[in-house]
Amino acid sequence: MDKEKAEKLKPVRHSCEHVLHLAMTDLFPGLKRAMGPATNEGFYFDFDYDGKIKEADFPKIEKRMQEIINADLPIVKEEISIEKAKEMFKNNPYKLEWVDEIEKKGEKATIYWTGEPNKPGSDPDLCKGPHIESTGKIGPFKLLSVAGAYWHGDEKNKMLTRIYGTCFETKEELDKYLWQIEESKKRDHRRLGEQLDIFTISEEVGPGLILWLPKGTIIKEELEKFAKETERNWGYKRVATPHITKSGLYYTSGHLPYYKDDMYPPMVVDKKEEYYLKPMNCPHHHMIYKSKPKSYKELPLRLTEFGTCYRYEASGELYGMMRVRGFTQNDAHIYCTLSQAVDEFVDVMKLHEHYYKIFGIKEYHLELGLRDPKKKNKYHGDEKMWEQAEDLMRKAIKKTNIKMVEQEGSAAFYGPKVDFVIHTVTGKEYAISTNQIDLYMGKRFDLKYIDDQGKEKTPAIIHRAPLGSDERFIGFLIEHYAGVFPTWLSPVQVEVVPVSDKVEEYAKKVYNAFSQENIRVGLNNKNETLGAKIREATLQKVPFLCIIGEKEKQMSQEKGNLIVSVRTRDGKNLGQPRFDRGQIEINKFLEDLKTEIEKKI
Amino acid sequence: MDKEKAEKLKPVRHSCEHVLHLAMTDLFPGLKRAMGPATNEGFYFDFDYDGKIKEADFPKIEKRMQEIINADLPIVKEEISIEKAKEMFKNNPYKLEWVDEIEKKGEKATIYWTGEPNKPGSDPDLCKGPHIESTGKIGPFKLLSVAGAYWHGDEKNKMLTRIYGTCFETKEELDKYLWQIEESKKRDHRRLGEQLDIFTISEEVGPGLILWLPKGTIIKEELEKFAKETERNWGYKRVATPHITKSGLYYTSGHLPYYKDDMYPPMVVDKKEEYYLKPMNCPHHHMIYKSKPKSYKELPLRLTEFGTCYRYEASGELYGMMRVRGFTQNDAHIYCTLSQAVDEFVDVMKLHEHYYKIFGIKEYHLELGLRDPKKKNKYHGDEKMWEQAEDLMRKAIKKTNIKMVEQEGSAAFYGPKVDFVIHTVTGKEYAISTNQIDLYMGKRFDLKYIDDQGKEKTPAIIHRAPLGSDERFIGFLIEHYAGVFPTWLSPVQVEVVPVSDKVEEYAKKVYNAFSQENIRVGLNNKNETLGAKIREATLQKVPFLCIIGEKEKQMSQEKGNLIVSVRTRDGKNLGQPRFDRGQIEINKFLEDLKTEIEKKI
Repeated sequence: MDKEKAEKLKPVRHSCEHVLHLAMTDLFPGLKRAMGPATNEGFYFDFDYDGKIKEADFPKIEKRMQEIINADLPIVKEEISIEKAKEMFKNNPYKLEWVDEIEKKGEKATIYWTGEPNKPGSDPDLCKGPHIESTGKIGPFKLLSVAGAYWHGDEKNKMLTRIYGTCFETKEELDKYLWQIEESKKRDHRRLGEQLDIFTISEEVGPGLILWLPKGTIIKEELEKFAKETERNWGYKRVATPHITKSGLYYTSGHLPYYKDDMYPPMVVDKKEEYYLKPMNCPHHHMIYKSKPKSYKELPLRLTEFGTCYRYEASGELYGMMRVRGFTQNDAHIYCTLSQAVDEFVDVMKLHEHYYKIFGIKEYHLELGLRDPKKKNKYHGDEKMWEQAEDLMRKAIKKTNIKMVEQEGSAAFYGPKVDFVIHTVTGKEYAISTNQIDLYMGKRFDLKYIDDQGKEKTPAIIHRAPLGSDERFIGFLIEHYAGVFPTWLSPVQVEVVPVSDKVEEYAKKVYNAFSQENIRVGLNNKNETLGAKIREATLQKVPFLCIIGEKEKQMSQEKGNLIVSVRTRDGKNLGQPRFDRGQIEINKFLEDLKTEIEKKI
Repeated sequence: MDKEKAEKLKPVRHSCEHVLHLAMTDLFPGLKRAMGPATNEGFYFDFDYDGKIKEADFPKIEKRMQEIINADLPIVKEEISIEKAKEMFKNNPYKLEWVDEIEKKGEKATIYWTGEPNKPGSDPDLCKGPHIESTGKIGPFKLLSVAGAYWHGDEKNKMLTRIYGTCFETKEELDKYLWQIEESKKRDHRRLGEQLDIFTISEEVGPGLILWLPKGTIIKEELEKFAKETERNWGYKRVATPHITKSGLYYTSGHLPYYKDDMYPPMVVDKKEEYYLKPMNCPHHHMIYKSKPKSYKELPLRLTEFGTCYRYEASGELYGMMRVRGFTQNDAHIYCTLSQAVDEFVDVMKLHEHYYKIFGIKEYHLELGLRDPKKKNKYHGDEKMWEQAEDLMRKAIKKTNIKMVEQEGSAAFYGPKVDFVIHTVTGKEYAISTNQIDLYMGKRFDLKYIDDQGKEKTPAIIHRAPLGSDERFIGFLIEHYAGVFPTWLSPVQVEVVPVSDKVEEYAKKVYNAFSQENIRVGLNNKNETLGAKIREATLQKVPFLCIIGEKEKQMSQEKGNLIVSVRTRDGKNLGQPRFDRGQIEINKFLEDLKTEIEKKI
């Protein structure tokens, strides 16, 4: 949901929250209201109540809310004196605390009446507003969840109860939002990551450090293989660099001492030499560039690496695979002349789109990160360099048709940047890759090339990472595909399921036939029912099940060819019309399967 | 050369050194002898001389030496008093220093006469011996090099001159040794590593940390790809783990605090939590094993990773790619039952041999590292565990036909180990991989599986790394192949060399044809002579050169097919008899090339 729309909805949602607390007060005598604001996603209401309120109570509450809405009660603001407010809310310590606060600040107290002011049955509540004019104008609403919440979010205070809800202008919008919530839960990469054996995090190793399990490692390595092949075709050269360096490189880059808090602390050797885990790959690549003199004929030089970097993110920021402390970047640095920079940057953006097409990512936009104009002194480099870099990047962006928004204050300290932000089907947005035309670091690292006139020049450096990090991109892909990876990325591509012991030997032959063709195949010969085996493979989202029964074995003997029944993970049979019940010759299936894998469909 | 033979040769070599100093004394008046021992490789002679002696002087010296040998002078020992020794060597401060030492120790002074004792022309020298009876018994010899050397190796002392030489029993042995020295220089992985753009080391990043250049990265990634494919076929499952961990894992393993000096210092977060770079992958793999409960049905579980580890080797120990501080191991841990351990360990050894066959490594042996029987208390674990592990490993070794030697004192602290030691063609030996059946760490890490009786058991853990580390193995391969990598490992597989500008367009077509077939191809369209281009590609050891001239272009037009002349890096033409001058249809060549690459010939 865009921010503008969310702002517009806030008074409606706030009024809906008043309807909620009115309904709750009616239904649960003794309940004390604490607070209840509108948010970007809906609203919530915190209250103090001795009994237990569960989601099972929601229908009853929603029914009462609907009655209040149907009654179309006016919502009316009234300014009152501090004294009157203290008298009015004398039985509610939460409201009184607020009144004290208002008094301290010397502000005026306001209440909002639901119903005609001062009429019996009308309800006054201490509130800043704003609200809409009457309850009848509240659109379709829904209560979402109930949870505990400490008063003021401080665990030293009393634990209150919180009910979350939302409302929208139209039923369609509400339904879409409810679908998004449900779908987000189903797609949560942390839940699916565990269910599908993709990754684990060990407290003993450390928070934010991903251990890739065998199935996850297959996805990681397939993704890397794909990127390596693609980048080779796009003219990149691969390198591999250590994960540590002496601190000097980061003083040269300017990351030390200012960005020290974002890094793991140094390893201090013999009380003098400091080594750091690398938080980025750039300086290491610059050292490779510098290892031999360069001529303009060697440019553009595109050095690429799946480089693992480490950053000490605050523990509160850590979030599954999406926000981690160790991550393997699909990184590259393109060293080029100034006149090559725009074309190279356009190519980088095209490479993003090439990747996105393969993964079916259709919703994305660019964010151009610029300096905060009020704090220009917190950035490095001179005015001319900033303008030139921004100009080159704008020129490149113009050559694409990608939607762009500008964000003042989110440049890097040494230059403007362009983030690709991709959207999940449930509306979440992830900044996946950061790209830059960098006219600063070349000078800092004293990088050179000899131009066609024999003169020393400084190369421009393009930073790019279209697939971001393995961790974040695969985290995104899990949510994007809801775990239903295309066959080429699926850890197990075919599961062979014998119906009984009697066909086990034949099932093994089928298994071997797939394995020999480098298909990632599983064989479930556990002592379980066919139904259980199918359920297990379906939960693991295996693209194809080969069900092996007497019929398949017998047909195979008759035809002198391996015959299988193939069932897709969404329950379809891949049968051929020429056979009885959907059986298929393995060679025919293998051919289609290989095409699907190769084309990354 | 084996140690026994070297010991046997020492008296001969020592006598040869006496012949050397005798010859030098004749030829360079004023020269003062310092010392001159036999070594495992030959001998050397340190002396003090004001003039400059160069390798160009060697023929003259060798001629004089040969005369002394031909004269078959006796070499005779004589015990003399300290006083006589002092008198005899009063003009030689080096010898006098030694006499003082002998006096302090209360030992007797001995001299060796070359020639009849006390006869004019005979030469006495202060020496401990032993020697052979006469110069005529000295076999074929050779002076090798001349260098500076501080007296007693201390740079505070005077810089003397040192001449190295060697001698053997037979001419064949000498020739072989001389070839090995020459060949070792040519094959030195540090020299070839630079010439072939394989790696660089940056002082700014840190000593012992390899930066893989684009060509080296191709070799690294091809090697890893090959290992990944092989290990998949051998039933391994890949994982990927972080390069750091909280210190706790190493206290559990027992590496901390005892092996702290071999590790980079810790990163201390908030003055309490210590993180370490991993010096090995084992504990991380154990955490993956532990992440879910295991049944005996899941064993053997073979977890493998190209895991990068860091160890803080002393700077004096660092040596090119062979001894480094950061290295990527071809690591795996096999978790299995005790009854599976021998077969699994045999399989590990077979996997070594499978790899060695591909790389043409024919000379290797096993070293079984056992406890130092005199220091049993410095090892962890009980007697029974040690005996059982040793017994299992011996059983497995017996099932192979690989030569094995035992080494007391070189076990790991938690169990015996088996090193594979491979030999270069020049006689160097490198311990490439360490393997173990480990009955200790499973208990330490509280690893479990449920056996077929429903009982909790501890798995045995096999540690293995057949290809060792990328750094050491590729360092070895450089020396093994003398940089002439087989085509599948060659960074550039085909270099297209147009004879002139006129055929540049056609050359590009040829280049594209290779590139489309995923051949790593280069195009040299520099403004250079054909000879220079061929020289360049030959220096880079590119397996195939496609030389493109008018003839090839014309034939191609006639035949409607790309035609090239192919020259191998050792100067052969791959021509077809049906064409004039060795031209060949590109498709035919591509077919052979792909077979060669696929078969890793």
